[in-house]
Amino acid sequence: MSTSSHSEAKYEQQQQEEEKTTAGGAVLPDLPSGGALDVYRKRASFCWKDMVLLMEGEDVSAFKQRVFRTLENDPIFARQPGEDLPMEKMRELTFLRVKQLFRYDFLTEEEMMSNPLKAAIFTDVLGMYDWSLVAKYYLSKGMFGQTVANSGSERHRKFVQDTEDMKVYGCFALTELSHGSNTRAMRTTATYDPSTQEFVINSPDFESAKFWVGNLGKTATHAVVFAQLYTPDAVCHGLHSFVVQVRDPKTLLAMPGVLVGDMGKKLGQNGLDNGFAMFHKVRIPRENLLNKTGDVTADGLYVTPFKDPNKRFGASLGALSGGRVSICRMAVTNLKLALTVAVRFSATRRQFGPKDTEIPVLEYQLQQWRLFPYLAATYALDHFSKTIFMNFVELQIGQMMKDRSDRQAELGREIHALACSMKPLGSWTGQRGIQECREACGGHGYLAMNRLGELRDNNDPNATYEGDNNVLLQQTSNYLLGWMHAKQHGGTRIQSPLQSVDFLENTEAILESRFTATGVEQCMDSAVVLHAYKWLVCFLLRESYNRLAQEKISAQDDFEARNNSQVYYCRSLSIVYIEHAVLQRFHDLTFDPDTPPGLTQVLRRLCALYGLWSLSNHMATLYMGGFFSGKQPVELVQTAILTLCSQLKDDAVSLVDAVAPPDFFLNSPIGMADGQLYQNLWSAVMQGDKVLERPSWWKDFCFDKPEVGSLHAKL
Amino acid sequence: MSTSSHSEAKYEQQQQEEEKTTAGGAVLPDLPSGGALDVYRKRASFCWKDMVLLMEGEDVSAFKQRVFRTLENDPIFARQPGEDLPMEKMRELTFLRVKQLFRYDFLTEEEMMSNPLKAAIFTDVLGMYDWSLVAKYYLSKGMFGQTVANSGSERHRKFVQDTEDMKVYGCFALTELSHGSNTRAMRTTATYDPSTQEFVINSPDFESAKFWVGNLGKTATHAVVFAQLYTPDAVCHGLHSFVVQVRDPKTLLAMPGVLVGDMGKKLGQNGLDNGFAMFHKVRIPRENLLNKTGDVTADGLYVTPFKDPNKRFGASLGALSGGRVSICRMAVTNLKLALTVAVRFSATRRQFGPKDTEIPVLEYQLQQWRLFPYLAATYALDHFSKTIFMNFVELQIGQMMKDRSDRQAELGREIHALACSMKPLGSWTGQRGIQECREACGGHGYLAMNRLGELRDNNDPNATYEGDNNVLLQQTSNYLLGWMHAKQHGGTRIQSPLQSVDFLENTEAILESRFTATGVEQCMDSAVVLHAYKWLVCFLLRESYNRLAQEKISAQDDFEARNNSQVYYCRSLSIVYIEHAVLQRFHDLTFDPDTPPGLTQVLRRLCALYGLWSLSNHMATLYMGGFFSGKQPVELVQTAILTLCSQLKDDAVSLVDAVAPPDFFLNSPIGMADGQLYQNLWSAVMQGDKVLERPSWWKDFCFDKPEVGSLHAKL
Repeated sequence: MSTSSHSEAKYEQQQQEEEKTTAGGAVLPDLPSGGALDVYRKRASFCWKDMVLLMEGEDVSAFKQRVFRTLENDPIFARQPGEDLPMEKMRELTFLRVKQLFRYDFLTEEEMMSNPLKAAIFTDVLGMYDWSLVAKYYLSKGMFGQTVANSGSERHRKFVQDTEDMKVYGCFALTELSHGSNTRAMRTTATYDPSTQEFVINSPDFESAKFWVGNLGKTATHAVVFAQLYTPDAVCHGLHSFVVQVRDPKTLLAMPGVLVGDMGKKLGQNGLDNGFAMFHKVRIPRENLLNKTGDVTADGLYVTPFKDPNKRFGASLGALSGGRVSICRMAVTNLKLALTVAVRFSATRRQFGPKDTEIPVLEYQLQQWRLFPYLAATYALDHFSKTIFMNFVELQIGQMMKDRSDRQAELGREIHALACSMKPLGSWTGQRGIQECREACGGHGYLAMNRLGELRDNNDPNATYEGDNNVLLQQTSNYLLGWMHAKQHGGTRIQSPLQSVDFLENTEAILESRFTATGVEQCMDSAVVLHAYKWLVCFLLRESYNRLAQEKISAQDDFEARNNSQVYYCRSLSIVYIEHAVLQRFHDLTFDPDTPPGLTQVLRRLCALYGLWSLSNHMATLYMGGFFSGKQPVELVQTAILTLCSQLKDDAVSLVDAVAPPDFFLNSPIGMADGQLYQNLWSAVMQGDKVLERPSWWKDFCFDKPEVGSLHAKL
Repeated sequence: MSTSSHSEAKYEQQQQEEEKTTAGGAVLPDLPSGGALDVYRKRASFCWKDMVLLMEGEDVSAFKQRVFRTLENDPIFARQPGEDLPMEKMRELTFLRVKQLFRYDFLTEEEMMSNPLKAAIFTDVLGMYDWSLVAKYYLSKGMFGQTVANSGSERHRKFVQDTEDMKVYGCFALTELSHGSNTRAMRTTATYDPSTQEFVINSPDFESAKFWVGNLGKTATHAVVFAQLYTPDAVCHGLHSFVVQVRDPKTLLAMPGVLVGDMGKKLGQNGLDNGFAMFHKVRIPRENLLNKTGDVTADGLYVTPFKDPNKRFGASLGALSGGRVSICRMAVTNLKLALTVAVRFSATRRQFGPKDTEIPVLEYQLQQWRLFPYLAATYALDHFSKTIFMNFVELQIGQMMKDRSDRQAELGREIHALACSMKPLGSWTGQRGIQECREACGGHGYLAMNRLGELRDNNDPNATYEGDNNVLLQQTSNYLLGWMHAKQHGGTRIQSPLQSVDFLENTEAILESRFTATGVEQCMDSAVVLHAYKWLVCFLLRESYNRLAQEKISAQDDFEARNNSQVYYCRSLSIVYIEHAVLQRFHDLTFDPDTPPGLTQVLRRLCALYGLWSLSNHMATLYMGGFFSGKQPVELVQTAILTLCSQLKDDAVSLVDAVAPPDFFLNSPIGMADGQLYQNLWSAVMQGDKVLERPSWWKDFCFDKPEVGSLHAKL
């Protein structure tokens, strides 16, 4: 190539680059150029900045950049990749960082109200730094403060204000040593004593100790404690919540009668101090009962606006639902980080190529197939969790406005069903995806400094807290079976505010339909996949309904009947329902006229890949129900998946660029934006603690040599 | 029940208990009685001690108990559940424990020769304690010492003896910073200088630094270093191994020209010091070349018995194959521990039951379905890894005897193919199974002291070292495709020493057969599952063969053709091949006349469950190839799986009792043999470090309160 044609080509390329960028991207800093990632970045079919703006909008994006910059420049947030910190130090650092967050007060209430999405994005940003920090911050401000605000009344305002001012520090104490999921079986008691107008909080034995309570280990001064309320007439009115002071804010020493402590090391999130507490007849003022759903008068009479204690209980636990929407988003955030590391690594790591050359491992079909479906899942679940979050905000506004309409009630039920299945889907996809990223980075993925282990360990509890995944999935199938029941017994029209079940109205027609795609192109259309999913939901709903009916005849009781209808039936039903819902919303986005034309191609590919990959877990069901037949459907699905992987290959780096935080937040030498894989890794290793020094215990090696077999006779 | 009939019933029960036990079990200590696990133990259909004797034999079992007792009574091995130790401390403790193992010399060479299985069982026992200990011990004695012994000659004997005596400490330095799987691309050089009769070992740049070498971080004094050998005529003779001294055993300081250090924290196995080394023109004596496959004369002439450098290279890497067999067993050992914890927890943890009662969660069908298939996999893979280990011993004896027969060569190829797929199968089953156990134990599974996290983190690298799982699976499919090629082009009869491929001889008949089971009972017969697996292997072999042929026409080169035939083809082929082999051996055991009749029922159930559960991952393939059709096959498989789970429910506790180590080794409060779930957990929590003390940083909380929003303006 001559010099002139070379510069001509360069000019053209520059033009193309500029065309990819829009004005809106100005808030986003450019990525470093010159490294091995440039090759892929130049080949991308879209501009990553446009993608960011589609996902977040300019206002939120600018806010996010501001938080990124602020924390990166604050020494309290400084850290080193792969640090080996003792647990106590991690807890201290996390506490100091929380304190600094109070000083920054990044998101005032007015700002949050004007754009609620900012709250979710703010959590994303903090979580990209460290989930312990998020938990420690929100468990006091949100789980304690908001619960007191929502479940209490005017008389509890001071607790809320003190929490906002960090004068007190709160926690949410529901689960006990011997009870987690079965919340109604909690055994802590609160007995009213009219003589002093106090409640006596008591743990009958250590098995009823409050357990797993975040912030309770070392920091909390106050707790929302759930206990069985007893009036002086020895009648139990069920579980209620009380504000109990557990430590003196002036000394951090335990209050009299409170045995409170730290549970010790967890698999992850060790910046958070999870703890336990036993109450030995601890007296609290009558007013500390959070009295929205029930109260006790000065002389010991129980009063409640609810007639049905089940309803009252449900209302008092309502605060838990919001968390599930957030947890799905937490998993998505973890996937964004893990995939950034794995995709950038794969684009710069070279191994076996044709004829003794070496090529980036991203060029291997196998590596694409391992990583890209999770990349597609990340985009699908990001969009889903964001839009459901906005639906949830709508629900909350309705609650604040005391909306008593049927629509509001239906919206609540539908969001509950979606939240109870999106948390399992998100947390499991996160867990598997992070593990795949770890393995896809080979040995280097096993080095702590590259952070994939931390992501996995911090994502892990998402499967458990705020309701065990498998237990929650039952809530979703109950919702769907409820519709089926209403349809069959009352002819109710199936229709919900967010339309996630509307297609069930056509169950019969859908069940008669068959897979008709005959070519790969056709199969790569997400509409085709959506159709297959609608069939799956209808099929598994009918099968589950019949199974349950059959079990109700043969089983000992309803409990056993329900239990024996989970595996392969209700559980699978909930999973296909939520996968369909996620896919539907992503599909709609890719056909939304407001989606920039420069992004639709890559988004449609991601959408089809997510759909087909998820669908491929259900192919046996598609065959058994007759939707698939012959050899072709599987061949088409598999070929479509591999074709989409290959089409996405040159976009993969830009797709992670659009979801990646700055290097300081990613904190992973092999995943840095400059693509200088080995320089970054080597440099981080060489700057570790005492890397080149002989060990402190070197004399154990050099002297006192063992005499081989000297203890053999003793065996 | 009257008193007399009560005592009568008790007597009968006692009789039954005694009938379950055989005399051989005398070496095994009884389990504690009186706890919540008794209920299940009494219901078991077999005696767990008989199972131990079937699995290990009396001699090995007694040896194992001796090692258990010895380590438990040695203060150097004392530890606390959930300790939070700094990395340096973990490395020191591991080193001291290794030293103590030299003193015990548990297994002399004569003992090992008389019963080679003891070596495998000894590794199991140490691994149950801590895999870092195993790695640190064997990487010097085995990977260094044995490699020097096998790849060197008489002149290297002193290194071997010094290693045995722990005068020097060794490591195996193959992989480099920028190369792992592609071993031939290593860039370290060894250039012969005839003027001094030395080799000059050199790392051209930091990317060629030896990396990930176990023991090299802090301890190794000597390394087997793989480097490209150059003779003075500047000819490169390919990768050879050299003994290079890296540290002075008297001081543990690095030798001149050697930059050696510690890579830092890993996701697990932090008792082992993985390290790196760069060599700056380091001179070593000519004799340090391990010269079995090639040597250099004093005046610089290269001499080798191998004409084909590929063959020479293969022979020098042979040492790696043995490790893969062990890794599968490591994963099985981890599964044993994780399942012991999860099953005992599930049998003692009570939650929701019918009508406000509570029942052990082990009674839930869902919990059974989550755990029991992994329990079945544990037994299947335990038997498989044990028998393949014995085949491997046979192979090694053949090598020592210089057996040049075709059978010996074929045995080597077959074991290579089995090892390259059993490592992926074992490590992935381990990883998924441990994760399922973690989640099945809910929050308590997330507490570090309960050890499921440590097991997962220590099992994780099994997917990566000694060959990345996905890369290794190609070796297995190459072996199978080789048979197909030989059949089609030379009419070779398909027959191998271990008979893992013999059925391929009947490919055509097998491919014409169909699934014929019509009832659940029939489907629960492992012979039916084996038949389905034979069909799967034949089908995927044919499909892969055709795919590869087709790709060779359309792809740019052979490399691309191979790469594009992995997903859904060769990779799946290797997986079904090894699953079939595992199932076949387990099936044979359950029909072996030597297997005690009291154990056959439970073993057959485990075998069928393992087979059906594994098979259920391939149902889409069974349909697409026409082996399955209609609704019935899936229904039968699913019903059979659930039926087997329910049949195994009362045996589950005894099945883990038979594979569980003593509590000291299990080191998990929720998994202890007495079934005192909450007492053990509470007690362990309360005895943690500084549990009830206020944190050292309490003044950060009580004073210097943050002024909310004071830094907001700075944003």
